[in-house]
Amino acid sequence: MPPRAGIDLGGTKIQAVLVDESNDVLGSVRRPTPTSGGPADVAREIELALRDACAGERLDPSSLAGVGVGSPGTIENGNVSSARNLPGWEGSFPLAATLEAALGCKVRIGNDVQVATEAEFKLGAGEPYSSLLGVFWGTGVGGGLILDGRPWRGRGGAGEIGHVVVKLDGARCTCGRIGCVEAYAGRAAMEARVRRQHEEKGRRTDLFKLMEEHNRTRLTSGIWARALEHGDTLASAAIERAIRALGAGIASVVNVLDVESVVIGGGLGVRFGDPYAKRIAQEMQPHLFVDSRPPAVHVAALGDLGGALGAALLVAEEGPPPAAG
Amino acid sequence: MPPRAGIDLGGTKIQAVLVDESNDVLGSVRRPTPTSGGPADVAREIELALRDACAGERLDPSSLAGVGVGSPGTIENGNVSSARNLPGWEGSFPLAATLEAALGCKVRIGNDVQVATEAEFKLGAGEPYSSLLGVFWGTGVGGGLILDGRPWRGRGGAGEIGHVVVKLDGARCTCGRIGCVEAYAGRAAMEARVRRQHEEKGRRTDLFKLMEEHNRTRLTSGIWARALEHGDTLASAAIERAIRALGAGIASVVNVLDVESVVIGGGLGVRFGDPYAKRIAQEMQPHLFVDSRPPAVHVAALGDLGGALGAALLVAEEGPPPAAG
Repeated sequence: MPPRAGIDLGGTKIQAVLVDESNDVLGSVRRPTPTSGGPADVAREIELALRDACAGERLDPSSLAGVGVGSPGTIENGNVSSARNLPGWEGSFPLAATLEAALGCKVRIGNDVQVATEAEFKLGAGEPYSSLLGVFWGTGVGGGLILDGRPWRGRGGAGEIGHVVVKLDGARCTCGRIGCVEAYAGRAAMEARVRRQHEEKGRRTDLFKLMEEHNRTRLTSGIWARALEHGDTLASAAIERAIRALGAGIASVVNVLDVESVVIGGGLGVRFGDPYAKRIAQEMQPHLFVDSRPPAVHVAALGDLGGALGAALLVAEEGPPPAAG
Repeated sequence: MPPRAGIDLGGTKIQAVLVDESNDVLGSVRRPTPTSGGPADVAREIELALRDACAGERLDPSSLAGVGVGSPGTIENGNVSSARNLPGWEGSFPLAATLEAALGCKVRIGNDVQVATEAEFKLGAGEPYSSLLGVFWGTGVGGGLILDGRPWRGRGGAGEIGHVVVKLDGARCTCGRIGCVEAYAGRAAMEARVRRQHEEKGRRTDLFKLMEEHNRTRLTSGIWARALEHGDTLASAAIERAIRALGAGIASVVNVLDVESVVIGGGLGVRFGDPYAKRIAQEMQPHLFVDSRPPAVHVAALGDLGGALGAALLVAEEGPPPAAG
């Protein structure tokens, strides 16, 4: 089988990978996501990222077995709509057809968080299990489910662990609702809160100084990690608050679904790694109804490439079965 | 196919039904659950309830196609353990084998809430749907799941919607944990709270007067319903608080699973009926992430008999397929 490609289409970066039939990475390319323009400009950047990745392997995109794209927004028959963290993408855009015409090979589109969950299930930390909850802790908090070895999507909108309510009459979420996990644990919500605490209430923190020193315009996972390493009190308190909310929200889902495993990914989840996954497991424990048998909690094993690897699986599933031997 | 029997084994009553191959009820008998003794005494009462039901139809129990029992506690291979609201049932008891020896027909045991959920799915309010969340609102708050037409049990402990956390640092639950739905909505938790409010803080309520007038020792669903009809302020506030917690907890599960429907059963759910199911749906709405497409919310259509009808399904599933025509 010829190589396949996977694209993780994020709000800040486009990550492309080329993989062989064993899902081993042949090459990868990363480009920034356009911050202005519209869907056609984003599609053009995806095409360029793919051409770059193929050039490294002396391949023509048309010779690929296919390209999978993990995208935010609502996906229907290769069309992507309401991708709110991509520029000018409120309406529907025929992303699969556009890329197929540009590249000359088949293109399949899936939900970004769902394909990342499937990647961890098939190739990563979820491999030993038949049921798992994927939690992607980053700018927002997304989730995906594998039940009995298969993705569970409900009516298309399943997996929103970030909008599990952990505090009635609690904090307002970036989604506008009250008391969601993401209101406490999403990077965007945390940044807004520490900024208010710092600027309006004079609470001391090095977070914004570190941000400027590293030429960032927002508090990235790396900035948070550095502040924690420096013992920044305000940053530590924000992260502890996030972990409590994640622990309660994940435990609630475990009480309802009794999955075998939880995989923690996303920018913050991957950056913080094992010690913080253990802290999340500790915060889950007092809320677990069957507390003698907690699920296994792992950090996403595929790291930053999980989304792109999962996207490449979208075309593997449709390909011919691998040859014997 | 000969008639089948179903038993709903509850903390206060043993409900038996006899059904034909169309699951139509041929007869039903209710006996109080023993409040002292042990598992053998409970098994004897189940046997008597079944013999009563069979006598009404001039049947011998040994001629039944089988008996299903929906039981609390942990069920494994026909043995029931840790059934804490049954007398002296902390350990494991071979309920299936005991009843098979006494009755001369096959006996299957299932979880009480799961069989009630399956009954609503196959015969009740959940019939039009392929995925549903059953919420049993009574002394505690139990739950069951049907996903893609099949029960989802996880590792055996799924469905605990009553222990979804809706308030970090909130009220203590009857299970000892903090902030669970059941801490706000379970009848036991509500009774303990209004008793404290009445006796320690002098808040006015007719709940306990009604309880005595009706010769009850606890605030039954009927007592709560009467107090609400009388406009009892304390009772109304307790029920509104319960409904807010149920709304947030159910919405959280819908955000993760995106099920098509929610069926509200249990003593309080069935007694309060449609107007309160609508109130629960209203309280879910502000927490739903895909709020343009809420799940259908129904009251359990099988009422008090759902548990016993679901138990009878346990033996239908194993029987021969119905004859053609």
